[in-house]
Amino acid sequence: MQVSFGIIGASGYSGLELTRLVLAHSSASLKFATSDRWVGQTVASKTGLPCELAYVSVDAGLAAARGCDLVFLATPAESSLDLAPKLRAQGVRVVDLAGAFRLQDLSLYPTFYKFTHSAPALVKEAVYGLTELFRDAVRGQPFVSNPGCYATAAAMSVAPLLEAGLIDPSSVVINAASGVSGAGRKATEDYTFMEVDADFRAYKTLSHQHVPEIRQTLTRVAGVDVPLVFTPHLLPMKRGILSTTVARLKAGVTQAQVSGALADVYGRERLVGLRANADAVRIAEVVNTPKCLVGASTDGHHVVSISAIDNLLKGAASQAMQNANLMLGLDEVDGLV
Amino acid sequence: MQVSFGIIGASGYSGLELTRLVLAHSSASLKFATSDRWVGQTVASKTGLPCELAYVSVDAGLAAARGCDLVFLATPAESSLDLAPKLRAQGVRVVDLAGAFRLQDLSLYPTFYKFTHSAPALVKEAVYGLTELFRDAVRGQPFVSNPGCYATAAAMSVAPLLEAGLIDPSSVVINAASGVSGAGRKATEDYTFMEVDADFRAYKTLSHQHVPEIRQTLTRVAGVDVPLVFTPHLLPMKRGILSTTVARLKAGVTQAQVSGALADVYGRERLVGLRANADAVRIAEVVNTPKCLVGASTDGHHVVSISAIDNLLKGAASQAMQNANLMLGLDEVDGLV
Amino acid sequence: MQVSFGIIGASGYSGLELTRLVLAHSSASLKFATSDRWVGQTVASKTGLPCELAYVSVDAGLAAARGCDLVFLATPAESSLDLAPKLRAQGVRVVDLAGAFRLQDLSLYPTFYKFTHSAPALVKEAVYGLTELFRDAVRGQPFVSNPGCYATAAAMSVAPLLEAGLIDPSSVVINAASGVSGAGRKATEDYTFMEVDADFRAYKTLSHQHVPEIRQTLTRVAGVDVPLVFTPHLLPMKRGILSTTVARLKAGVTQAQVSGALADVYGRERLVGLRANADAVRIAEVVNTPKCLVGASTDGHHVVSISAIDNLLKGAASQAMQNANLMLGLDEVDGLV
Amino acid sequence: MQVSFGIIGASGYSGLELTRLVLAHSSASLKFATSDRWVGQTVASKTGLPCELAYVSVDAGLAAARGCDLVFLATPAESSLDLAPKLRAQGVRVVDLAGAFRLQDLSLYPTFYKFTHSAPALVKEAVYGLTELFRDAVRGQPFVSNPGCYATAAAMSVAPLLEAGLIDPSSVVINAASGVSGAGRKATEDYTFMEVDADFRAYKTLSHQHVPEIRQTLTRVAGVDVPLVFTPHLLPMKRGILSTTVARLKAGVTQAQVSGALADVYGRERLVGLRANADAVRIAEVVNTPKCLVGASTDGHHVVSISAIDNLLKGAASQAMQNANLMLGLDEVDGLV
Repeated sequence: MQVSFGIIGASGYSGLELTRLVLAHSSASLKFATSDRWVGQTVASKTGLPCELAYVSVDAGLAAARGCDLVFLATPAESSLDLAPKLRAQGVRVVDLAGAFRLQDLSLYPTFYKFTHSAPALVKEAVYGLTELFRDAVRGQPFVSNPGCYATAAAMSVAPLLEAGLIDPSSVVINAASGVSGAGRKATEDYTFMEVDADFRAYKTLSHQHVPEIRQTLTRVAGVDVPLVFTPHLLPMKRGILSTTVARLKAGVTQAQVSGALADVYGRERLVGLRANADAVRIAEVVNTPKCLVGASTDGHHVVSISAIDNLLKGAASQAMQNANLMLGLDEVDGLV
Repeated sequence: MQVSFGIIGASGYSGLELTRLVLAHSSASLKFATSDRWVGQTVASKTGLPCELAYVSVDAGLAAARGCDLVFLATPAESSLDLAPKLRAQGVRVVDLAGAFRLQDLSLYPTFYKFTHSAPALVKEAVYGLTELFRDAVRGQPFVSNPGCYATAAAMSVAPLLEAGLIDPSSVVINAASGVSGAGRKATEDYTFMEVDADFRAYKTLSHQHVPEIRQTLTRVAGVDVPLVFTPHLLPMKRGILSTTVARLKAGVTQAQVSGALADVYGRERLVGLRANADAVRIAEVVNTPKCLVGASTDGHHVVSISAIDNLLKGAASQAMQNANLMLGLDEVDGLV
Repeated sequence: MQVSFGIIGASGYSGLELTRLVLAHSSASLKFATSDRWVGQTVASKTGLPCELAYVSVDAGLAAARGCDLVFLATPAESSLDLAPKLRAQGVRVVDLAGAFRLQDLSLYPTFYKFTHSAPALVKEAVYGLTELFRDAVRGQPFVSNPGCYATAAAMSVAPLLEAGLIDPSSVVINAASGVSGAGRKATEDYTFMEVDADFRAYKTLSHQHVPEIRQTLTRVAGVDVPLVFTPHLLPMKRGILSTTVARLKAGVTQAQVSGALADVYGRERLVGLRANADAVRIAEVVNTPKCLVGASTDGHHVVSISAIDNLLKGAASQAMQNANLMLGLDEVDGLV
Repeated sequence: MQVSFGIIGASGYSGLELTRLVLAHSSASLKFATSDRWVGQTVASKTGLPCELAYVSVDAGLAAARGCDLVFLATPAESSLDLAPKLRAQGVRVVDLAGAFRLQDLSLYPTFYKFTHSAPALVKEAVYGLTELFRDAVRGQPFVSNPGCYATAAAMSVAPLLEAGLIDPSSVVINAASGVSGAGRKATEDYTFMEVDADFRAYKTLSHQHVPEIRQTLTRVAGVDVPLVFTPHLLPMKRGILSTTVARLKAGVTQAQVSGALADVYGRERLVGLRANADAVRIAEVVNTPKCLVGASTDGHHVVSISAIDNLLKGAASQAMQNANLMLGLDEVDGLV
């Protein structure tokens, strides 16, 4: 089967990675890619891969979308909020990489995304695509909301332990650190080399927009509310997220049970690497790959469970492709390995 | 008053910083500096500062120590364990930058330092020199055990909140990250540029030797046991530690109370910078300085309190100098600002 | 056609990249890979790619070599000097990535490689595989000496200008800078993060072993001796080489002639990217690719011609694969794009 | 003697370093510091040093300048061009850190600085302050044009060899590399962490504004025209410049003569470190210091002479302070060591 994809927002860091994945897909063709800043330039010149297309405007992309099997939105949340309904109204399948449809509780958008949601019906239709956790819900669906980068890493480190009932849901503390590409292609002084190199700091402490997203995922998995604390940090490097979760073990829980719970969920996953302990998980091993590494250590009282992903791939583009493949009935890892 | 200092272990990263601080001190002279690797080379060639001494062997240093007002041990813990009793037997004041005398509970050494303690009497004499927390105990004393780098950063971020009774002592989760110099001057593959650059990972999860040291400090301050979880990480940068503490606030505790507790302890400190919230603390601002920055944010349920230090200065050499000045009745910040 | 490859020295940085390229080749299979340090571990665990082999000893590799179409030597020069004759005596095709057979003038080995050559007959048989410059000489040959990383970058920046007679052969000054992986997998203090990060320095000034190699190439292309000056520098980054060549233009030579000479040689090359001027060449664009970028700027008197490569790929593994493909009559870029 | 300084342009990277140097000066006081972006904020908050001043506007600075012994201009060249005549008209001594008065040949400004010079008389009055080369010309003067960062590093590596007549003046090729702070406090995408980290590239090839400045200096020292080629590169680090000069030795010139020429000029300099050869010069040793390192290697035909400076100190602020001290009859290194 041959499928055709379109990409809206192809010049952001995630959009650029996604374009490369589409071009590497064995049964997909790229029908269009939009970019305001690169209109008229060739896709080949930016991706380094053979492609005869040039970037077009969003309007041109929308016009071309009808003929696509699926369109990826790699836009800011405000743009997705506007574009997703238009595409869905045309019957086009959509994977939205932005945050505009991730939260089922509409009351959270004003606080965390600074808008009142204008398409509440579509929120209900949106399937949350954290693939390894919710694969069956994604399969064959027409509209998937792709998880945030931190939300992917954080949830994958701890969801299996909550699902297995091994930890106290009220004790989850997550510290994460991300490379600079997580901030997008911004030219503000905060992200100049002079500000970022040789520094490390937290940001959006107790207020990051991925907090309710992680909570929604963990609560769904645990069956009870999981009121976690999440603190993101900025690393002096380009790509990658490490997420370190600390939680209290329920009485008597052993390392074997923890390792077993991770193996139950991830043991057969082609894009997850299980490690023997938390120290064996590192960012360098996942950068430029669609993989997630997970490993956990315990001391009888607490578990430290660590995950690592490439924020632009498993945290955005490659997970979007996993979901697109599932939506279309293709091999989930096509274009990825 | 003129005082004379000796340094044993002057070629490690901390020892080198300490040598520079001694040379910058307004009323101190450097009597000797030992270094196995640099014996015979000049102190000027390594520090870039005017000094007529050459490095000598440890034996030569021990022989010269008797005439010193104070000797710094910037050696591995095993060496301090051997050297500190010899120096104290000669009546020489000592600041030990290693971990050999930090833990009052002798039963912890085999696990965390891989030796059975051979000088238990000296452990009792040792005063733990986390200056801002225990200044009065240090003043005028002859033997100070200088805190570990992580132990300094971690304790400073949370001790005032425990002391003020604002947080649940059983809920303390500390994540910290350090630059590579924390590992010392080792040429193992783990610390090559190829391994460290563009990576981030945890290490010694649930087993770091600073865990009992932090627990001892926090328990002393809180008056009850504080069984914290501590996870150190390795940063792709040379210097600096950021310590992020998450804890549960006691019911009704406000941001004002948290900020007030920090101000009570640190408000008049010359080497502590208080920040309005946790996001305003960053490593870049403390590197190459003797300062500690601290800031905390709250959300009604939890506090995130972050501190930053230069691991070689406030985490080692400059705190050693604060303690030495206090032991000798000098201005605490002489040589430091 | 299916071919089988063996790799001796598969755990060095170049050997590891080469292993990945062999595994990605459309018509090649990996028959064995040797590594002293990884004997018994799986190739999959180190490359992240599907492969059922485990690493074996050099002796086991030699025993398995007879059944291979071609064996790559990614060993130190001293080892290649010993192994290449053994493999050739068995009739096995060889690509040697080390420097042991690069120089046709045997008198240079003692100075630049610290050994007297023990296989002079094989030096004569060795074809120097700087693919884009000497492709016809490589095709179908059984023994290729793969160029050095700096030698590749330096020669590619300036060879077309010498070949076209546009510059004064006595005026060639080459400055190059390489990422740390060029030094190999060494755990010496020189290559620790503490020594390399935030530093830049020259090394082996006027004495680098690639100087005679570059001179041999340029002289061959120019038809007259080209007594260049070459100064390598160490960059605080993992991968990549930038080579900046300055030379005096012959009277009246224009930018158009310079650009034309580069286009004549590289215009149809699939792995060379021509750029409009010297400033448009950068390392970031070639890292993790088999490509070489080249661009030149002139001012009527001088030309500055700059090239960039990934030192582990075009400077080692991918060029070795280009050569292997040519030796075996396969598509030159198989396994590379 | 007590002197008072003013700084116009105190929030650029050089201006900030200069402010710290003024505050560390044993006999100087800071009378005002201007900064458009920091008006009203305290100097203490930005420098980390004790100071009761707040930043003021340029107009307020100009009004306060009359009472100062000397005003530093750490502004863009266009601003210096406007401000220097106003200050000189008031009789105030000026050190201009910008390029507006560096070139004696007025015809060069339109090409290299994009303006026609509006104060030609002041160009004649301006003394070029490359301290170690032209100290006697600076002493006691009222108006000094402070050299550019590259121009300082480049000239210092090769001027003594030209002065001693050891090299062919027509053969000078200079390659230099600078940390990112050389570009100033710009928030353009070119200087984001994503663009700079793990990259290395040339820029302004054959057209950098320091080329005529270096040529003017070297010609003055050599007594004949020195038509050098200069190629600057951008390093993935914050601070520092390494300048690598290659030149043809005159017949028979020895390493001893080269080392001797460097020693003749720099042997007694307090802020120059002579090294035994070119490889022994590195950026890491000069960062955060006012020093210049110089070392040269030869092979009988060519010399490679390398210098290193901190671009913000010896390349800007600390050299400005050397000059200010000389203009006022103070110890040249006051505030610097």
